[in-house]
Amino acid sequence: MSSILVLPGDGIGPEIVDEALRVLDAAKARFGLDIDLDHGLVGGAAYDAEGDPLPEGTLEKARAADAILFGSIGGPKWDTIERDKRPERGLLRLRSSLGLFANLRPAILFPQLAGASSLKPEVVSGLDILIVRELTGGIYFGQPRGIKEENGERVGFNTYVYSESEMKRIARVAFDLAMQRGKRVCSVDKANVLEVTELWKEVVTEEAKAYPEIELSHMYVDNAAMQLVRAPKNFDVIVTGNLFGDILSDEAAMLTGSIGMLPSASLDENRKGLYEPCHGSAPDIAGQGIANPLATIMSLAMLMRYSLQRGDVADAIEAAVEKVLDQGLRTADIHTEGTRKVSTGEMGAAVAEALANG
Amino acid sequence: MSSILVLPGDGIGPEIVDEALRVLDAAKARFGLDIDLDHGLVGGAAYDAEGDPLPEGTLEKARAADAILFGSIGGPKWDTIERDKRPERGLLRLRSSLGLFANLRPAILFPQLAGASSLKPEVVSGLDILIVRELTGGIYFGQPRGIKEENGERVGFNTYVYSESEMKRIARVAFDLAMQRGKRVCSVDKANVLEVTELWKEVVTEEAKAYPEIELSHMYVDNAAMQLVRAPKNFDVIVTGNLFGDILSDEAAMLTGSIGMLPSASLDENRKGLYEPCHGSAPDIAGQGIANPLATIMSLAMLMRYSLQRGDVADAIEAAVEKVLDQGLRTADIHTEGTRKVSTGEMGAAVAEALANG
Ligand SMILES: [Mg+2]
Ligand SMILES: [Mg+2]
Repeated sequence: MSSILVLPGDGIGPEIVDEALRVLDAAKARFGLDIDLDHGLVGGAAYDAEGDPLPEGTLEKARAADAILFGSIGGPKWDTIERDKRPERGLLRLRSSLGLFANLRPAILFPQLAGASSLKPEVVSGLDILIVRELTGGIYFGQPRGIKEENGERVGFNTYVYSESEMKRIARVAFDLAMQRGKRVCSVDKANVLEVTELWKEVVTEEAKAYPEIELSHMYVDNAAMQLVRAPKNFDVIVTGNLFGDILSDEAAMLTGSIGMLPSASLDENRKGLYEPCHGSAPDIAGQGIANPLATIMSLAMLMRYSLQRGDVADAIEAAVEKVLDQGLRTADIHTEGTRKVSTGEMGAAVAEALANG
Repeated sequence: MSSILVLPGDGIGPEIVDEALRVLDAAKARFGLDIDLDHGLVGGAAYDAEGDPLPEGTLEKARAADAILFGSIGGPKWDTIERDKRPERGLLRLRSSLGLFANLRPAILFPQLAGASSLKPEVVSGLDILIVRELTGGIYFGQPRGIKEENGERVGFNTYVYSESEMKRIARVAFDLAMQRGKRVCSVDKANVLEVTELWKEVVTEEAKAYPEIELSHMYVDNAAMQLVRAPKNFDVIVTGNLFGDILSDEAAMLTGSIGMLPSASLDENRKGLYEPCHGSAPDIAGQGIANPLATIMSLAMLMRYSLQRGDVADAIEAAVEKVLDQGLRTADIHTEGTRKVSTGEMGAAVAEALANG
């Protein structure tokens, strides 16, 4: 028996998570999965109900679960409340409380949607790369940091810092994931200039010795930003630190032209994970039934693959999504001439049906 | 009378600089320019002749000149000599000795070459953005830095640091340049996470008050990496720090698909500058007469515009380049079916002729 905690959150979160749960039901039926579902409040919804974007009860449930399916959080309603109570803080605290240090950001482009990209179809169609970003260390968390007075003027400073153990564990995640894929890992650094990434390169190279089947390469971050534009399909798995990963994973996501399609995961040491779409809570269209549930459904597929070790179920969910795209079904954000515009619910139902019949 | 120091350097440097000088001759004749030319050794060529990639004589000449036209440096021949004597060190020392803190990296795509881009022609054709990167501060130079022992393991660390005065002067360069262009500046930071860029954003905003005609916007670096892919033509001038500028300027360069076309400049406080192509010394094709001289010729145009305050001459050189592209002339690196493949010298001669007759 596996347990999943469902945290729909704010904005379009509840409606897209509902569709992912409909797909989960189809997966349970088809594969005879034994899954215990729990539900909780997070973000603005939790603040409204309990005055805290991450109530203690939610955190307890999260600790107990094998995986968390997360919708989205935030909205203008909570933009003016004190910083520590804002919806985003709930997600940040959840990640750090659970030690979710490995952020998985796939950049996938189904050939059916290649037209949405600003890149030429032949450059991006069928793109399937995975960026593994260290999420709980690096310059975003490094000490010392701040703004000080020096020689009569202000000076801003932050510290880019990683310990060997932090580097080792994220490298191992990348190698493990690559073993389930194309067995190629590109480690991104700026080792020619920054000592912290010189050590990064050395540690990653050392860790790779335990993975003789993996083909490891190294690339400077500025070159990686170029190669993602030039020939993104040359990559399989990219592993890098928090800041470089933030920049490159967003760049890679935009290569696809449809952020509404992209899932993500944040894993701990034991493959427990939080799964969520890359897009935001889109408060402007919340409740209208037009949001795209596919990124959340793809997040559920990742949950199956990585936390529940059911790659077969993940493959089936992804195949169902592809089938529905083949049928020409599109939510408003990915709609083009000659395809059929459907609602959030129609899209979810179609994927569930395709999965049931798959 | 203005003075230009010519530093051809290594690899294809001498042959591409020769063509830029041919164009300079045409410019002098057409515009009646009074320019004093001096020549010097730098990089591997200087190491071979004098045992130093930046001989004292070259540095003295550089200090005396109004502008420097630089070719390219480096090659496998010097890869194994001691680090401090390598060709690249000559360029780094030249930049820091002259206080060239403002790196200008245009990303320009002539419509005639739009096919070379991995992006759709309508997304990039006619692209003309200018990235202003702070070049002598930030995390590449910050102290403290290194690799230390802590709790029984190694820890790598670097410091991302900027003082207010460093931020102010690069902001002013960006605003001044934008006044000569589209009057829009996008300042790139990560102010939501990094204090050093929180101060950056504040200082840039304050400096903008002296430029009421400038439209200033702010963007997080991860979003900027996305927007460069999605809709690069929305940008005019981008200003950012050393690391972010390194990443974004290379990404922007690759949007054009033809690095062989891109010039660059590094300016000091008084608009003295070093001008060089973005591409490297390409030792594999050196001496064959097939290198593309256009990036160096475009660098000469930048030199005219920024150090010699002759925007009219710069415009004429750029128009001559465009005319030659219209005529279908292409060096091997940008050659496509239906165009005429020409040598380095034929390309330079054609631009000089177009400029003379312009
Ligand atoms: Mg981001
Ligand atoms: Mg670079």
